[in-house]
Amino acid sequence: VSRVLLTGASGFVGSHTLTALAEAGHEIHAFSRGEPPPAAERVTWHRVDLTNPADAELALGQVAADALVHMAWYVEPGRYWQARENVVWVEATLRLLRAFIAAGGRRAVIAGTCAEYEWSLESYREDTAPLAPATMYGVAKNATRQVAERLAADAEVQLAWGRVFMPYGPGEPRERLLAGLITALLAGEQARVSAGTQVRDFIYVQDVARAFAAILDSSVQGAINVGTGFGHPIAELIELAAQSIGRPELVEWGAVPQRPGDPARLVADAGRLRQEVGYTPGVELREGVERTVAWWRERLA
Amino acid sequence: VSRVLLTGASGFVGSHTLTALAEAGHEIHAFSRGEPPPAAERVTWHRVDLTNPADAELALGQVAADALVHMAWYVEPGRYWQARENVVWVEATLRLLRAFIAAGGRRAVIAGTCAEYEWSLESYREDTAPLAPATMYGVAKNATRQVAERLAADAEVQLAWGRVFMPYGPGEPRERLLAGLITALLAGEQARVSAGTQVRDFIYVQDVARAFAAILDSSVQGAINVGTGFGHPIAELIELAAQSIGRPELVEWGAVPQRPGDPARLVADAGRLRQEVGYTPGVELREGVERTVAWWRERLA
Repeated sequence: VSRVLLTGASGFVGSHTLTALAEAGHEIHAFSRGEPPPAAERVTWHRVDLTNPADAELALGQVAADALVHMAWYVEPGRYWQARENVVWVEATLRLLRAFIAAGGRRAVIAGTCAEYEWSLESYREDTAPLAPATMYGVAKNATRQVAERLAADAEVQLAWGRVFMPYGPGEPRERLLAGLITALLAGEQARVSAGTQVRDFIYVQDVARAFAAILDSSVQGAINVGTGFGHPIAELIELAAQSIGRPELVEWGAVPQRPGDPARLVADAGRLRQEVGYTPGVELREGVERTVAWWRERLA
Repeated sequence: VSRVLLTGASGFVGSHTLTALAEAGHEIHAFSRGEPPPAAERVTWHRVDLTNPADAELALGQVAADALVHMAWYVEPGRYWQARENVVWVEATLRLLRAFIAAGGRRAVIAGTCAEYEWSLESYREDTAPLAPATMYGVAKNATRQVAERLAADAEVQLAWGRVFMPYGPGEPRERLLAGLITALLAGEQARVSAGTQVRDFIYVQDVARAFAAILDSSVQGAINVGTGFGHPIAELIELAAQSIGRPELVEWGAVPQRPGDPARLVADAGRLRQEVGYTPGVELREGVERTVAWWRERLA
């Protein structure tokens, strides 16, 4: 059991990670920019804007956490791939890590991304796949990692960097693919999608959260893929959702073009996560989509 | 003629760059952390600590420069290769560039380093030599460049990144090799040096400054080596200084070990600087050392 500082704690992946860390028995200090939710067992909320240097340093000094799980970043759907706000988060992340180290922190796990890799490779193995990010988001995360790894090594603080593939599930912002699709179909509206031929490593958000909690409790350092190791065409995700809702006729296939530069295939090599951390994602795509549909049905009821 | 913002303007390379920019006819706004020197023609001094976010943004907003020449960094002799302060300067540099862009800036030239390259290559060409920095300093500069280049491209601001090899000359801090050697020999003291077999691209500081002024006035973008293209063993630099002072017997060869990890050979491919910018460093090593000795003689008289 550690005193864990979790940033981005009210975000899509962060909120599930909060639950996973609490289930693992940690004492959690949760940072969030917005109004904190009601207090829960083992969780102390702090309202902190990490892009504000004074705010961030003050909060870090007060918490004096042993461990850091850093998930906060600029993630505005549609915009975050190319937005300049990514640069602000390079700065905020390095400042956060410095303050965490200065306050006596011992182990940090930071959320990276599959967008750090050169895209459309056959295999994405942490120690061999070339890093050549095509997006501002990928460049910013990859550069942050280079400095963070060196800083941590110098300070003798452990650092693991979880490269997240394609999370989906309850709590996803409505502007993202699956949430937008489900809410449209549940409302009986047409859903305009691409042909969906691109293959992706979709990972249920609870599995992402549990993977991060498992990485934290391991001694693994450096880059580690957070994916299932299995690829599915985007069309399969869409079909599973449409079938689960029972409205496949509302899907307008090919009505939107593929995003320029979108890679054909993004599937993790999940060997390191499985073998060195001992974590295997447990929720298969069909089940994950069904759970997500059920969550939206309840929420919109 | 542009309104140029120069950072690190009272530093070793920065102070010479100030002169070179003034000679080129630019209107200069010089940033320095310390007490500014007396005002000079074409130069407005601003006392700014770029590591202080509020300070930096305020100053940038007031100046509204067309062009930026960014030389400020943590350069404490002996310490800067591995110091954590490098991380602070990643943050400060990205923040500076964002503020420069927000204030309407059009062209930036930033000081990089040969330490961004994998070391001990036969050729250091900007577009082919692998980047694998061995030091914290190199990691920090290289990561900053990756984000800065992407940010500038996105904002349609021109960015050139001058990878400086081994500057020497008047104004060097006394803790650095040549300045320490000269001041010791002029005082009649023994000078303890290594065997000096490592080959380096020594470039006279005035040539570095003029190269940066020429890069600014060109339309070159991306990484560009700032070196002479010629290598000399460190021992040759030491011998030239000892001969010029006339006290070769004071040099204790081999009295200090080579720094661990110090590369055997660091010599720029200067083709891009010569062909695309049209600048060729003009001061040969013997002449540069003699000028430096003369400068110290006068200063210490």
